[in-house]
Amino acid sequence: MMLTAYGPDTVDERRVESVADFAAVLTAHRHPVVWLDVDGVGDAATLQSLGAVLGLHRLTLADIANTTQRPKVEDYGAYIFVVMRAPVKCADTNRVVECEQVSMVLGKGFVVSFQERHKPGDCFGGVRDRIRQAHGNIRSSGADYLMYALLDASIDGYFPLIEEIGEHLDGIEEQMMARLNPANVRRMHELRRELLTIRRAAWPLRDAVSSLHRDLSPLIADSTRIYLRDCYDHVVQIIDLVETSRELAAGLFDMQLSLASNRMNQVMKVLTIITTIFIPLSFVAGIYGMNFDTSHPANMPETRLAYGYPLILSIMLAIALAMMWAFWHVGWLSRENKDA
Amino acid sequence: MMLTAYGPDTVDERRVESVADFAAVLTAHRHPVVWLDVDGVGDAATLQSLGAVLGLHRLTLADIANTTQRPKVEDYGAYIFVVMRAPVKCADTNRVVECEQVSMVLGKGFVVSFQERHKPGDCFGGVRDRIRQAHGNIRSSGADYLMYALLDASIDGYFPLIEEIGEHLDGIEEQMMARLNPANVRRMHELRRELLTIRRAAWPLRDAVSSLHRDLSPLIADSTRIYLRDCYDHVVQIIDLVETSRELAAGLFDMQLSLASNRMNQVMKVLTIITTIFIPLSFVAGIYGMNFDTSHPANMPETRLAYGYPLILSIMLAIALAMMWAFWHVGWLSRENKDA
Amino acid sequence: MMLTAYGPDTVDERRVESVADFAAVLTAHRHPVVWLDVDGVGDAATLQSLGAVLGLHRLTLADIANTTQRPKVEDYGAYIFVVMRAPVKCADTNRVVECEQVSMVLGKGFVVSFQERHKPGDCFGGVRDRIRQAHGNIRSSGADYLMYALLDASIDGYFPLIEEIGEHLDGIEEQMMARLNPANVRRMHELRRELLTIRRAAWPLRDAVSSLHRDLSPLIADSTRIYLRDCYDHVVQIIDLVETSRELAAGLFDMQLSLASNRMNQVMKVLTIITTIFIPLSFVAGIYGMNFDTSHPANMPETRLAYGYPLILSIMLAIALAMMWAFWHVGWLSRENKDA
Amino acid sequence: MMLTAYGPDTVDERRVESVADFAAVLTAHRHPVVWLDVDGVGDAATLQSLGAVLGLHRLTLADIANTTQRPKVEDYGAYIFVVMRAPVKCADTNRVVECEQVSMVLGKGFVVSFQERHKPGDCFGGVRDRIRQAHGNIRSSGADYLMYALLDASIDGYFPLIEEIGEHLDGIEEQMMARLNPANVRRMHELRRELLTIRRAAWPLRDAVSSLHRDLSPLIADSTRIYLRDCYDHVVQIIDLVETSRELAAGLFDMQLSLASNRMNQVMKVLTIITTIFIPLSFVAGIYGMNFDTSHPANMPETRLAYGYPLILSIMLAIALAMMWAFWHVGWLSRENKDA
Amino acid sequence: MMLTAYGPDTVDERRVESVADFAAVLTAHRHPVVWLDVDGVGDAATLQSLGAVLGLHRLTLADIANTTQRPKVEDYGAYIFVVMRAPVKCADTNRVVECEQVSMVLGKGFVVSFQERHKPGDCFGGVRDRIRQAHGNIRSSGADYLMYALLDASIDGYFPLIEEIGEHLDGIEEQMMARLNPANVRRMHELRRELLTIRRAAWPLRDAVSSLHRDLSPLIADSTRIYLRDCYDHVVQIIDLVETSRELAAGLFDMQLSLASNRMNQVMKVLTIITTIFIPLSFVAGIYGMNFDTSHPANMPETRLAYGYPLILSIMLAIALAMMWAFWHVGWLSRENKDA
Repeated sequence: MMLTAYGPDTVDERRVESVADFAAVLTAHRHPVVWLDVDGVGDAATLQSLGAVLGLHRLTLADIANTTQRPKVEDYGAYIFVVMRAPVKCADTNRVVECEQVSMVLGKGFVVSFQERHKPGDCFGGVRDRIRQAHGNIRSSGADYLMYALLDASIDGYFPLIEEIGEHLDGIEEQMMARLNPANVRRMHELRRELLTIRRAAWPLRDAVSSLHRDLSPLIADSTRIYLRDCYDHVVQIIDLVETSRELAAGLFDMQLSLASNRMNQVMKVLTIITTIFIPLSFVAGIYGMNFDTSHPANMPETRLAYGYPLILSIMLAIALAMMWAFWHVGWLSRENKDA
Repeated sequence: MMLTAYGPDTVDERRVESVADFAAVLTAHRHPVVWLDVDGVGDAATLQSLGAVLGLHRLTLADIANTTQRPKVEDYGAYIFVVMRAPVKCADTNRVVECEQVSMVLGKGFVVSFQERHKPGDCFGGVRDRIRQAHGNIRSSGADYLMYALLDASIDGYFPLIEEIGEHLDGIEEQMMARLNPANVRRMHELRRELLTIRRAAWPLRDAVSSLHRDLSPLIADSTRIYLRDCYDHVVQIIDLVETSRELAAGLFDMQLSLASNRMNQVMKVLTIITTIFIPLSFVAGIYGMNFDTSHPANMPETRLAYGYPLILSIMLAIALAMMWAFWHVGWLSRENKDA
Repeated sequence: MMLTAYGPDTVDERRVESVADFAAVLTAHRHPVVWLDVDGVGDAATLQSLGAVLGLHRLTLADIANTTQRPKVEDYGAYIFVVMRAPVKCADTNRVVECEQVSMVLGKGFVVSFQERHKPGDCFGGVRDRIRQAHGNIRSSGADYLMYALLDASIDGYFPLIEEIGEHLDGIEEQMMARLNPANVRRMHELRRELLTIRRAAWPLRDAVSSLHRDLSPLIADSTRIYLRDCYDHVVQIIDLVETSRELAAGLFDMQLSLASNRMNQVMKVLTIITTIFIPLSFVAGIYGMNFDTSHPANMPETRLAYGYPLILSIMLAIALAMMWAFWHVGWLSRENKDA
Repeated sequence: MMLTAYGPDTVDERRVESVADFAAVLTAHRHPVVWLDVDGVGDAATLQSLGAVLGLHRLTLADIANTTQRPKVEDYGAYIFVVMRAPVKCADTNRVVECEQVSMVLGKGFVVSFQERHKPGDCFGGVRDRIRQAHGNIRSSGADYLMYALLDASIDGYFPLIEEIGEHLDGIEEQMMARLNPANVRRMHELRRELLTIRRAAWPLRDAVSSLHRDLSPLIADSTRIYLRDCYDHVVQIIDLVETSRELAAGLFDMQLSLASNRMNQVMKVLTIITTIFIPLSFVAGIYGMNFDTSHPANMPETRLAYGYPLILSIMLAIALAMMWAFWHVGWLSRENKDA
Repeated sequence: MMLTAYGPDTVDERRVESVADFAAVLTAHRHPVVWLDVDGVGDAATLQSLGAVLGLHRLTLADIANTTQRPKVEDYGAYIFVVMRAPVKCADTNRVVECEQVSMVLGKGFVVSFQERHKPGDCFGGVRDRIRQAHGNIRSSGADYLMYALLDASIDGYFPLIEEIGEHLDGIEEQMMARLNPANVRRMHELRRELLTIRRAAWPLRDAVSSLHRDLSPLIADSTRIYLRDCYDHVVQIIDLVETSRELAAGLFDMQLSLASNRMNQVMKVLTIITTIFIPLSFVAGIYGMNFDTSHPANMPETRLAYGYPLILSIMLAIALAMMWAFWHVGWLSRENKDA
């Protein structure tokens, strides 16, 4: 657990191992804001003692421990409980998006945050830097502003992911014009699934942030509300981008079906043209390959003509030309269809 | 009928056969909470006498007996009537989901619950255990908390079902990449149908639980409302999961169509390439198989050439190579299309 | 016109021919409730005199006469005007559903109902029986309860129709797995059309019944409102069922397309396999059917070999086996594709 | 410009050329209602002087002149401004629907209406007749009732159009069962486009009429509001019909795709059956057409058998029967597929 | 930066280089309205000093600088901040639409506008002209009217773009009837993407303008609100047009699929007819091309008939006619299918 206690002039940042250490700092009231960042939520004992120290409701503790919550904000009077899902980039799998649960408890003068995993370079790193360097007005603001900063940092993690998905979709569109590839079909499906994941995280977050912004809890200062409105705008923008990408992905499926049917048409035309021209010709050749007894004058008299062979070849040529004229006539040979 | 009367210190659990027994326990006021769990709703006489004892409205009795109700909550003043649908796993059919009706009547100091079927290990088993073992705060809470506990137990039954459907969908997606299977098409349709069943149960449940949570009935204590809000969150999560699964299932249909058209394209290309190469060659062979009278010098002079046969074979080879070059040129033979 | 005047103890039921007879019974005030059931709305004179006797608004009369109204409830102060559409089973056509307009005017102590057609065994028959037999509390209730009873009877007519449509859809799904049938395609379209018809009748009915339930008109007693809420629940259930059936029908179209493309794939594979194996073989046979002058040693020397024929047959067999190995290799011959 | 001034007893109807004439009649106060019907909105000077006489806002004049407005109602206090789109039947084009803008200004004692084109037999003709013949209560009502009458007349023009579109759709469905026709595909698309046009006109009209109905402007009498509610019902009915037709049209596209794929399946089966039966047979015939030197005993010994020919023919027949049995076995030859 | 200070009688228009110049004009109070048009938002220092002079919130400055904002209106009390996206025509790319961010700050007596790029002939040119020429009532109105004028000018830029997209869609529809073209498929997808871009800009703009119109800020005069309502109507019209175009584009995809399947059907019928007629005929010819030893009387006796050849030709003709009759019978040769 990472403890960060700070005020306009002082910062005290250290790792603590027990909830008692946190409680000591909190009750000392030496720093206006105390932030405890709990990494991992698996330790039930820690959670229980935190709940006892801070007076958390049984349901709050259950929600923190069960990491499949929908994003929500609950005002318990003495504290505000925020659950959201922050995107995590998984380098080792080919899934772009996974969302881990981030919970926060905002009380009078403190914020306790819970992340499923705590990695170096997590999304709270930027906030920690701003506290250390007294960047912006974070040091001179209260715990409510810290909660806003953590919320905003988690939300901002969505933008690069959505952009990446958009680039994947563009790449698939580009490839699709050149050739049809079943791997792309699956990739599109996966991207849609990832967009669904983000959407499931973002829609309830919108309501949650909106209720934070409108809520009249004394724990949140009016000056912080304007920042929460900005936070709300970001969530709405994420939803906008996700919905647009979803529409694009659905459009790509339409486009893929249309292109596939166009190509099938072209392949079928080639087959039909070749078959239709040569099958009758082969039939004519087959006729004159029959072994009728030519001693009877009615049997295959053409084969006994002095110029029977050139005659038949000419007839074949005429048939082929007639067929091609017919295909040209119905438009299958026109140049426009070549690029079709 | 299972009767469970309890208070902070005492539990009295036994099977009763008549409504009179229940009425006796109820009027004795020895236990703060009396729970009657009626199994099966077919016995009209029992229902009538229960209605008379508890003062239930004619429509309430009709709703309990008719097990095709939509989930709803109705506040009749003296009691609150709750109808919901709990999922039932049918081991013997290949349908995953069936929802049976669960009705509850919450009055002052009592809850009467009705299940269509009462099996060992039903969804109320966990609640019964918690009462017996005084687990959590159920023993020290009132009848409203019992109703919440029963509601929550029924709702939690949906999660494993939805998860199972999700795994089925993932399995189908995996198989689809390897080959197209009409059995999967039907399986997808069945899964969509089951998702519709859950959706039909969950959407009205959301409104019902929400109205329970907001309702100002004196039968529900404020401390219980916070638990009902949690219950509401669960229902919303179920709806979320169902809608996401529905989108995924719809996406699988798109994917199946795209893959099928891709494969068709590939099959057609193989057919067209083979046909287009060999049909002209066969035609050429057919020409030299004709039986023209070669005593006339104009008839098939090529057959009388010393090297006519190798010449014709070479011409055939040239035609085949030209065709293949043409196919390579339009991209049908490129390696990218092999994996297409 | 059927006149039914009743109270807790008396029933007076008879056919009347003129509005004056009805007016006489109404003004006699001998029965608490007077119900006039007008069959057919074509007689403009009857409608006009009814309007005069009951003080109906010009627009009410127009709405009764014009039988293409949307379901609605209008409170004119002195009376409440209800229009709805009741399903009619047409035995003689193959359309399952047709909806006829049912209008009702509820005033102080009377209900006038209008049906497009009045057949024996119409949907009001059950209500008439309950009045005759003093079943339930209809005889002891007022005109508002009668209106509820008529409304409920009309609404209940939808359930068997929707069930029937659902069974048709299930039957089509079953058949679809066995074979594709264009007649089923059309049947599905017809069922969707019928579901649209029911939906068009049910959605506005929901709003209408809801406004009846919430309306504070003194014409409707509070004890009746609870029944109207039940009525409302039924309409919502109809809408639920219709929407679910519509989703299922749409899903069947997806399934039909997927199955058709799967089958096409299979047919094409058979064609391609047969063609691809035999066309090269035929070409080889064609080559050795050519009539080159074999006195030149370079012309078709194979034909002069002692074992040329078995050699060529062996080569053909090798080609065929190679082709089949290739098809097996790309998975077209594997058993999984057989059931595809 | 057509001026119609009327009261319960008098009607003064005449063409006026200048706004001054209208202003004179208006200020004379001889008739309770003065209606000016301006045909064509192109004359900017007329519009300007009308604006000056009636005190119209700059934006009102701009909206009248710009005939691409969305339907809306704006209450400017001194007058109410209504814009709607009335359907126009274009006999000379093959587009069924075009909507022209109809604007109305309702002031104290006057209505000024603007139509894009003023043709004999326009949709206001019926209203004019009712004024002339003192039909209904139009002559005894005020300017608000006149506005209602004009609005209603414009709205009623939609019903025959929607009916016509519905009949077109039915006709296409009927034809589709018999054969597939690309002209129908386009016709369906055009009908959808026309339904979109009507929808675009009807949806905002709903809000507009609803706001007229609810608005508390003193310019509209309470007795007229009940008529506006009726008008609102008509608009909602139009929307209902349009949405239903749109669903049907979308369903027709599904049906067309399904039928096309069914037919393709059938065509492919015929091709595959014929090809698969005859290609092996032709190959066998080709083998015995080879010119191997039969002086070698191993070369084509079958051809030298006394009954080689009938033997081979029998083998061919056996192959053909085996193939047909295989096709029958997989269900391609069963009677059910014939009608498929 | 372009500074335009004006009142009913005076206009002072000039380029300024520093914020100080603007501050000087603003504090001089010589002109009722001062408009600063900042071109390019890259200069952070300018933005900072502007923020200091006008007392802008940190978040406002951040929103101006970050040009990917959603359209919104924020009332900061002392000033109103408006962000919108104006369409930009990109002549050099083949994308029709790109939207650049336009931000505006409306304060007491001033408007500061920010455009991403400032080109000659930008969308504010018309407003500048109206100020110079004292056209309409812009010179006599306040800063709020100026903001309306700028907003309206930006919004009006959408109409020609949507019209252009509509024309593209019409053109594609026209071409689609003649032939299928994959370039059109992509063009349709691009148009849908552009419609999505406009939609993303227009939907939030609707809410923004609506809140401007309803907001009770003292910075906006009541007389201006009526113009903002007009502005709102324009945005709603844009949304209407975009949604209609989106429906049309989706309909074109349906149409393309239907036409492609129709054409495929036609191509397949030609192939099947030709193949099915000639393959059996070729087989017959192949039979009589076999080289059976005709010294055995059972081997190919037909070839030794005096009229064997004409007999076989007649049989072939009969087979061909029978096949054609069969095709005519199933409707593949009927004239209706020719145009299919």
